[in-house]
Order: sequence, then structure tokens, then C-alpha cells
Amino acid sequence: MEEKKIVRFGILGCAEIARKYVRAIGMTPNSSVHAVASRSVEKAKAFASANNLPAEVKTYGSYEQLLNDPSVDAVYIPLPTSLHLDWALKAVHKKKHIILEKPPALCVEDLDTILEACDNNGVQLMDGTMWMHHPRTPKMKAFLQNPDLFGDLKFVHSAFSFEGSDKFFEEDIRVKPDLDAHGALGDVGWYCIRAILWANDYEMPESVIAHPRPVLNEGGVITSCGATLSWQDGRVATFHCSFHSARTMDLSVHGSKGILQLHDFAVPYEEKSASFFSSTNTKSGEMDTFWGPRPNEHTVTVEFPQETFMVEEFARLVKKIRDSGGKPDSQWPSICRKTQIVLDAIKTSIQGGLISVKLSSI
Amino acid sequence: MEEKKIVRFGILGCAEIARKYVRAIGMTPNSSVHAVASRSVEKAKAFASANNLPAEVKTYGSYEQLLNDPSVDAVYIPLPTSLHLDWALKAVHKKKHIILEKPPALCVEDLDTILEACDNNGVQLMDGTMWMHHPRTPKMKAFLQNPDLFGDLKFVHSAFSFEGSDKFFEEDIRVKPDLDAHGALGDVGWYCIRAILWANDYEMPESVIAHPRPVLNEGGVITSCGATLSWQDGRVATFHCSFHSARTMDLSVHGSKGILQLHDFAVPYEEKSASFFSSTNTKSGEMDTFWGPRPNEHTVTVEFPQETFMVEEFARLVKKIRDSGGKPDSQWPSICRKTQIVLDAIKTSIQGGLISVKLSSI
Repeated sequence: MEEKKIVRFGILGCAEIARKYVRAIGMTPNSSVHAVASRSVEKAKAFASANNLPAEVKTYGSYEQLLNDPSVDAVYIPLPTSLHLDWALKAVHKKKHIILEKPPALCVEDLDTILEACDNNGVQLMDGTMWMHHPRTPKMKAFLQNPDLFGDLKFVHSAFSFEGSDKFFEEDIRVKPDLDAHGALGDVGWYCIRAILWANDYEMPESVIAHPRPVLNEGGVITSCGATLSWQDGRVATFHCSFHSARTMDLSVHGSKGILQLHDFAVPYEEKSASFFSSTNTKSGEMDTFWGPRPNEHTVTVEFPQETFMVEEFARLVKKIRDSGGKPDSQWPSICRKTQIVLDAIKTSIQGGLISVKLSSI
Repeated sequence: MEEKKIVRFGILGCAEIARKYVRAIGMTPNSSVHAVASRSVEKAKAFASANNLPAEVKTYGSYEQLLNDPSVDAVYIPLPTSLHLDWALKAVHKKKHIILEKPPALCVEDLDTILEACDNNGVQLMDGTMWMHHPRTPKMKAFLQNPDLFGDLKFVHSAFSFEGSDKFFEEDIRVKPDLDAHGALGDVGWYCIRAILWANDYEMPESVIAHPRPVLNEGGVITSCGATLSWQDGRVATFHCSFHSARTMDLSVHGSKGILQLHDFAVPYEEKSASFFSSTNTKSGEMDTFWGPRPNEHTVTVEFPQETFMVEEFARLVKKIRDSGGKPDSQWPSICRKTQIVLDAIKTSIQGGLISVKLSSI
């Protein structure tokens, strides 16, 4: 009975990022790691051992074997983006619910194929945008939704960068055109785009235009770029993502009455505590030589890393389907799709020589 | 002899912002307010009285009278931008050194007329970009110039906004096409452009392009806009300036190794203390669930408001000319001109329907 309540995860591939989710699943009350698969059973066993997985966790030498295990409820797919379509479809056809690492697909057409399969198979999909699930995020949203403290949304800016090492630029899948073709845009830029949509209550922009001087490597993979998004009512958002600048994760949301600021929006500085800053109703000093008050720091303490909250939410949705005959939640796939559409439009803008790309309303 | 060492200022107009400079001049050891002028002597007297100026300070009922006073060494010109060309030229022809409130001119052609007159008359010009003179600014620059802590400059973002009141949008000179035609771009945007140029060691961008959805009032004055600047080597900068969002003054400078951040770059939260944040050599936690260290806060304590440091620097340059036969400093006029050129290019981009505007190298 207790066993029945747990969502049993299979891990499809032993990527570095999988370690984080194995740990998070282990920390999540309603979830457990049931099996891990790699392209060889030795690699799967080595991964299980390196991550201190209990002996009863199954290790498979192929992804198919894991998907054929009827005890697996859900799979976490941290494979390179170019493999997502194939393996997501295989998993979905086996009725496995999926957490698809971001970016979910090479293009929205591929993502739509996956989403259609999820619909047809009654399967839940969620992408790996972990910061959305941190308890800090709804607290920030409450500030943005407060008409007295924040007012009307006017402008968002986000930036996410880290400096890739020489090894990163030689070997990492995120700079390989045949693996993660979206590069910095799909990796760190994904979070910026999502943050902008999140702040805009997922209302799609009217148009996007990439900024001048995107950086592409010899394989044509974007290693740095930015864009401006705009809405018909005058809202504007900008972001910048890069593998060439020092690590920062900036998010500024400007309303008519208040400002939200933080510099660690995607991954908090600490695992058990995360802050954001709000300011509202500031006044200039009499002579304009000072102003205030300073922004307020709001700190949220948590017991677990943010991935745990994500797995818990996903497992909750899976249990509703598995145990109560519920339907898959449509919000997470919808948000995922909107983010992909904006990402695609920015690539189109870059490929077209920085053209403005209109987005049809969704 | 002591009197001789002081730079005697005339104040050309009793604008609100003039109060700040009257106070700053009074606090500056090498400067004093010698005279104030308004369009009526009553207004000048009322201003002198409201600002507790000593009885010996002269009050004039016309700007010409003040400029004809041979004891005035320098004038502070806080008039609306559309009056700058006329009054700056009149002041310069009377050999008065000038602090010209920003934005200095309606276009760089007008500014060049003023600068040429300054050259011909051996007169010092400085624009009123006060934050440049805060002792915090060179400390931030030292961080940006440190190859180990900051590395190579990659990206700058700046935003300066405040929410104009109903009265502001009805009456303020900054929304009147015949007075301060540059609106938010010339007012708060000027500081953002300057901050971007400052971070780039005043190297001019290759091109600028305005962001979609600038807001213009019925008189055609920009009340909100943004732009992206780019350099041939891949550096990019964005900014956003607005009269419609809550007050904030964001500056983020991203280098290959370090990040500079602050949210009060133009006017510090406190008159006697100002901070900035730097981060460098951050590391991701083992599982990418946290990172750090957090940015370091650097606090600079000062005795005076930043305008005092500006007046002091200006007066130092004036004294070199007046007392030692020195030549006007060329750095401040050059920086002023570059800022104006970028401002003009952004207006051209907006007026041209968001076209990319190339800047010829200067």
C-alpha cells in the first residue's frame, strides 16, 4: 500500500545533471528511483554506485529495457536535446510520464509531436525548469500581483551567464550542433525566456527581435545572444544569455509602483535559503541627492533543494492520473510550449539577420 | 588672496535642480555662489532667500545681467534643453566656464557649436552627470579594470526609471516638446548611456538600435524607451529608461571573470554612504543546487553629496585656467559629446521605425 503511493522513476541516461535529480527524487516523499539506464550496464551500475543508490535499484544496459520495465511510472530524460523527440515518444508510448530536461525539443513542431503523444496516452509532461518550483517563486509572484505594491508590469530584464572553461567549449554537449543545437539560448537562455513569460502571466509577446552580435561557434551553435520581446500594450522585456561571462542570474521586474530584483533567480546562492528584493513607494530625498527606502530583502527558508519541489509536484500530478484516473495537467506543457515558441522565434531572428519575428497569438 | 582662490558661480535660472547645485557649491571648499539670476529680480531674490544664500550674493532679474558681472567665473545652466544653445553661447562668449545640465543639447550639431565656442574662448565645459564624480565610481572602475577579478567586458545593462505623477505628465519641462524634447531618453536615459560608455572606456559602439514599443506622448516626447548598443568585438549593452515604472537605477556590468551590480548607480540610497556589489570566481555547488560566494558589498563613505565632488572637480579645472593659464580639460567635453551622439542615434532609430544606426568611429 505504501509502495503504491510512491511514484517510481526511471533515469534515462547517466548525464551529470541526472545526479542532481537522483538526489532530489531520493529526498522527495512521494517518489523513488526505481531504475537507471545507460548505454552499457557497467555505466549504469557505476552511476548507481557513485550515487549511493540502494541495491534494489535496477540497472539497465539500454534505455529500451528501462522503458519495458512495467514498474517504472515516470522517466527523467536528461539526454541531449537532439535525442528528446525519439526517446520521449518511446517513453510516452510505454505510458511513462516524463520530466524532459530543457530545452525540450529542437523546435516546437517536434515538441508538438511529443505533446500530442502525451495527450493520446494520458501522460504527464513537465520540463526541467526547476526554479519555477522553488517556494520563493510564488512569493515573488504574490508581490508582482499586488496592485498596491507592484502596480502594472512595464519591463523585465533577465540575464543568465557562466564562463565556460576550455574543456566546456571543447567537449560539452551544449556546444555541439548535433547534440544541444540551441547552445546558450536553450541552456541558460531558456530560464531567462521562462522568467519573462512567468512575469507576464504567460501572455505571449507580440514580437521578438534578437540583439546584434550574437556569438556562434564554428558549428553554428549560439554561445551568447540576447533579445527584446514586446507586447502590444507597451510591455517590453530584454534578456541576455552567455557562456562567455561570469556567472550571474539576474532578474529585474519593473512595475508602475514596485520593482523586483534578484541575482540568483535560477539557482539560489544557498540550498536552504533564498532571497529576493522588492522596493515600492520609494521617495527621492528633498534635493534628489539620495532616495529610498532601500529594497526589502525577503528570505524563504526551505528544507530541500528546488529540484525536490519540482519532483514532488510532478509526482503529485502523476499520482492523480495513476491512482485516481485523473487527466494530465495542461498548465506545465502549455508553459513549456510557449517557452519553446519564443526560443524558436529568437533563433529565426538570428538566422534571418536580426529580423523582427511576429508571434501569432496562441 | 583667499578670495582669488575661490571659483565664483552664477546660477542661470531658478529651476528646482538649481537648489541642489546651490547647496553643493556652498559645500565645496573651492567654490561659492556669487550670483543668481531669474527672469525677474523678485524670483531671484525669493530663490536666494529660500536657499538661505548670504546677503552678499547678487540677485539679477535677467540672465544677461548675471553674464555681464565680471566677478562671475562660471555659470551653472539648469535651463530647459531647448535654451541651452543660446545661453551657453552667450555665457561662453562672456568667458564664463559652464556646467551645462544634461542633456546638453538638442543634437550633437548644437553641442558642437557650443564646444567650438568653448575652445575659441578657452572655457571649460562639463555636463551635469553627477554620479561620475562620486568617489564610488572610480572604485567600481578599478574593479572593472582588474584583469584577474573582472576579465574582459562582455555585456552591460542599465535601467533608470521613475513613475511620473499626473502633475509631472501635465507640467514638467521633461515632457514638453518645446522645452526638453528628449524626454526620458535625455533625462534618465542619459545616465544609462553614460554608464554604458563609462564601462566601455568611452569606446563608441559600432551601432545602436532602439527597442520596440517606445512610448511617446502626444507631443512626440519619449516617455519610455530602450536600446541595444553593440561593438565590433562582440560587446553588447542594453538599457531601458522610463517615466512610467517605479524608481530604480540598475547597472550590471558582466565580464568574463566578474560581475558588477548596483541598483542606485545614478543617485545613491544615502548621501553619505554608497555601495556596489562585485562577484568573481564563483563556483557552482557540487550538484548545481547552489552557488557562490554571494557578491561582495563594497561601501564608500563620503562627507558630501556627489554634486559637491562634481563642482569641486569642475572648479579645480577652472582654477587651472583662470589662475595658472592652463587649457580647458578635453576629457569631459569629449565624454559629453559621445553621450550626445549615442542619444541622437537612438532618436534616429526610433524616428526611423527602429532601424539600426551605424556610428562612424570618432
